[in-house]
Amino acid sequence: MSFFDKVKIKDVLATNVEDMSNVTVYGWTRTKRGSKNIAFLELNDGSCLKNLQIVILNPSNFPKLDKINTGTSLKVTGYIEQVEGREQSVEMKAESIEIIGDCPADYPLQKKEHSFDFLRENAHLRPRTDTFGVMNRFRSKMSYAVHQFFQERDFNYIQTPIITANDTEGAGEVFQVTNFDLADIPLDEAGQVDYTQDFFAEKTGLTVSGQLEAEILACGLGDVYTFGPTFRAENSNTSRHAAEFWMIEPEMAFCDLDDNMEVIEEFLKYLFKYALEECQEEMEFFNQQIAAEDKIATLKEIIATDFGKITYTEAIEILEKAEQDFEYPVKWGIDLKTEHERYLTEEYFEKPIMVTDYPFDIKAFYMRLNDDQKTVRAVDCLVPGVGEIVGGSQREERYDVLIDLMQQMDMDLDKYDWFLESREYGTVPHSGFGLGFERILMYISGMSNIRDVISFPRTPGNAKF
Amino acid sequence: MSFFDKVKIKDVLATNVEDMSNVTVYGWTRTKRGSKNIAFLELNDGSCLKNLQIVILNPSNFPKLDKINTGTSLKVTGYIEQVEGREQSVEMKAESIEIIGDCPADYPLQKKEHSFDFLRENAHLRPRTDTFGVMNRFRSKMSYAVHQFFQERDFNYIQTPIITANDTEGAGEVFQVTNFDLADIPLDEAGQVDYTQDFFAEKTGLTVSGQLEAEILACGLGDVYTFGPTFRAENSNTSRHAAEFWMIEPEMAFCDLDDNMEVIEEFLKYLFKYALEECQEEMEFFNQQIAAEDKIATLKEIIATDFGKITYTEAIEILEKAEQDFEYPVKWGIDLKTEHERYLTEEYFEKPIMVTDYPFDIKAFYMRLNDDQKTVRAVDCLVPGVGEIVGGSQREERYDVLIDLMQQMDMDLDKYDWFLESREYGTVPHSGFGLGFERILMYISGMSNIRDVISFPRTPGNAKF
Repeated sequence: MSFFDKVKIKDVLATNVEDMSNVTVYGWTRTKRGSKNIAFLELNDGSCLKNLQIVILNPSNFPKLDKINTGTSLKVTGYIEQVEGREQSVEMKAESIEIIGDCPADYPLQKKEHSFDFLRENAHLRPRTDTFGVMNRFRSKMSYAVHQFFQERDFNYIQTPIITANDTEGAGEVFQVTNFDLADIPLDEAGQVDYTQDFFAEKTGLTVSGQLEAEILACGLGDVYTFGPTFRAENSNTSRHAAEFWMIEPEMAFCDLDDNMEVIEEFLKYLFKYALEECQEEMEFFNQQIAAEDKIATLKEIIATDFGKITYTEAIEILEKAEQDFEYPVKWGIDLKTEHERYLTEEYFEKPIMVTDYPFDIKAFYMRLNDDQKTVRAVDCLVPGVGEIVGGSQREERYDVLIDLMQQMDMDLDKYDWFLESREYGTVPHSGFGLGFERILMYISGMSNIRDVISFPRTPGNAKF
Repeated sequence: MSFFDKVKIKDVLATNVEDMSNVTVYGWTRTKRGSKNIAFLELNDGSCLKNLQIVILNPSNFPKLDKINTGTSLKVTGYIEQVEGREQSVEMKAESIEIIGDCPADYPLQKKEHSFDFLRENAHLRPRTDTFGVMNRFRSKMSYAVHQFFQERDFNYIQTPIITANDTEGAGEVFQVTNFDLADIPLDEAGQVDYTQDFFAEKTGLTVSGQLEAEILACGLGDVYTFGPTFRAENSNTSRHAAEFWMIEPEMAFCDLDDNMEVIEEFLKYLFKYALEECQEEMEFFNQQIAAEDKIATLKEIIATDFGKITYTEAIEILEKAEQDFEYPVKWGIDLKTEHERYLTEEYFEKPIMVTDYPFDIKAFYMRLNDDQKTVRAVDCLVPGVGEIVGGSQREERYDVLIDLMQQMDMDLDKYDWFLESREYGTVPHSGFGLGFERILMYISGMSNIRDVISFPRTPGNAKF
């Protein structure tokens, strides 16, 4: 038999199996119950949330039944029947049961509620639970949605370097990558670390963003997007930060900030629609078990809404007039905090909004300077319940202006000669944005801790698994 | 106008534009030629290989024409007409031309043949050339093919950790990741590096494989696959090695080696078919400009062929009988070298083959031990022209046997307690394989250097861009 013809429980439950009178399934036992006369097993194979109920009509014919515990892996053959009195629900009457892998009684995932903390410590077992089965399947489908959105629109998927000598954000929170023996670091004559002897012959770290390389590729290919891991060596143990996370960074040539905002809005709505249409089982689970609000209703509403648009300066005026005490005082020039962002999107606009044209001082070097010489063509997309979910900008494509901005920021121009050449030779207006994949998964699912949307999260002190 | 309605040159050339009498395109000038009476520009926007020919009927009406060089970016509006005498070929008669970005005469990509070496040093500009435009679009489409194959078959895309404390292959060629100041490494009382003070409180490096984590996820979700970056700190400056490359690692539960081989063969054939059907422009380019052989014919032949299957032991017998002098002498127990692999697949079988059941001593700890106690359920897929292109195995799912194997290899069992628990609790037979994405791109395209199938390759001494 072909491997691809192997029956999955998902197909059995959808009665999508050719011969219902003779079916073999494989999976892990979730529960066992019964009496002398009849016994029931709940079997899950990871293909869907729901278990297949296995009915054992003559338990005495199955002497090994005693050895089946929660967690035991099985091969079961039998016939499929509709559950009496319940439409659209089937069960399997077992004809043979084979124990594939025993599961001792100290199996940590016994049938009871487990805290998310406990499951994080057992991240190697939690894919076998309802919640993390759902989350993993959801993550996979939403990843595919990202690719479908861009591929259908002729964007090129690019894989930008993970190991890099750049620091795009200038944040300084870069993990270092080295091939040195840390107990024996070579020093140069001046007593400094001699990076010329390291693998790449210079100081390298893990990327914090693929944007600079994406710009280079957009200025040749047109429209591109990254979808890959990014890193921050930020020692913050919050529910929203991980040291390793996946980012989506589209970059479009011949594209200004208005175009950029159109792509952002279209992309977010596509993802929300995809979740509602292609991940129904997952969305229902999140709505019932995870989210604090009715996420399905929220997403539907957002899809039907035109996002608001204001400038940073207008946002500051609104915030200054707000009848609300903010922890961080509002005045032109501050970076907006989450409390400000949430007031704007939740209280004032009551819908997602785009805030544009932030002060130059609080944004990155590559954003296009406005004629006022003090704001840049940045955009942050804010959504209710979260605040900023996407950040982007039109890039500074004018060679002289960019050099000027970089010099003001004391950047080492020599290190960026290749980047600057994209402006020197046939420069074009271009724009892009970044979306943290885990952030959008958290937003859609209502899951409140980033550690629960990544299989094996990396946080300070934690690189286990 | 919507950004998504922007006309791309690809659509113009396919006459896939609604109003052909008034079209605006954006792109970079590849060449300019002409006389007083007529001038021609070749414009490329990265959407396809072919340029759009722009015809300027009255050059004197375009005073800025003098300033247009190779590399200059333009906005051109005009009407589309069929090229006289040539069917299925169109050109644009220009009505207005706007220079977006000048390009000085020292632009490195002047109209002439450039060596691949030269282009590697200008990796920031090479996406603007024919070859690297094609290669980038090909890479993007083939990435999507990978996702389509697995998603259509209900595999879950998983993102395994990049930063890890494991060393899957035991190869020791792991880049270290640290947040230490290398000039001031903290030591413990014994004078050793005190990793408890590092970001993750233990020694960490960049992943060489996501397999162990993929196994964990398969033993809960069923069928999964990774597609992400992997790293080797291998100081080998060959045309086939990069320090950073992308790997695809499927892992299937309830799957033995025969099933695994079925998935490998089906996957490879899918990729070849996808290239032939969905990347026709690219394949024709590779056939004419890059590959040393007729790649289209080769791939078609492979798709129509059943892959051969032999055991390692049979392979050794064949090699021992071969009337050919090998550089590396053949005897049972050796690791097959490329010369041996190529003899088997090219000379003896004349088609792709699967070689199974390699000696335990030359393979990794996690492969399933055969009853002969000296071979393991490994499989390498060999293809003509290359040798090994895929390596996989059925995994050792028996707890006691695995512990035994790991102890024989002096592995630290405590570090793998989480991995071992997948065997302790409801273990299942499972299998998987690994495919280097760049290797398959090289194989299909005929490109001979891995540096030319990655946008910004990482090799010893090179982390530029």
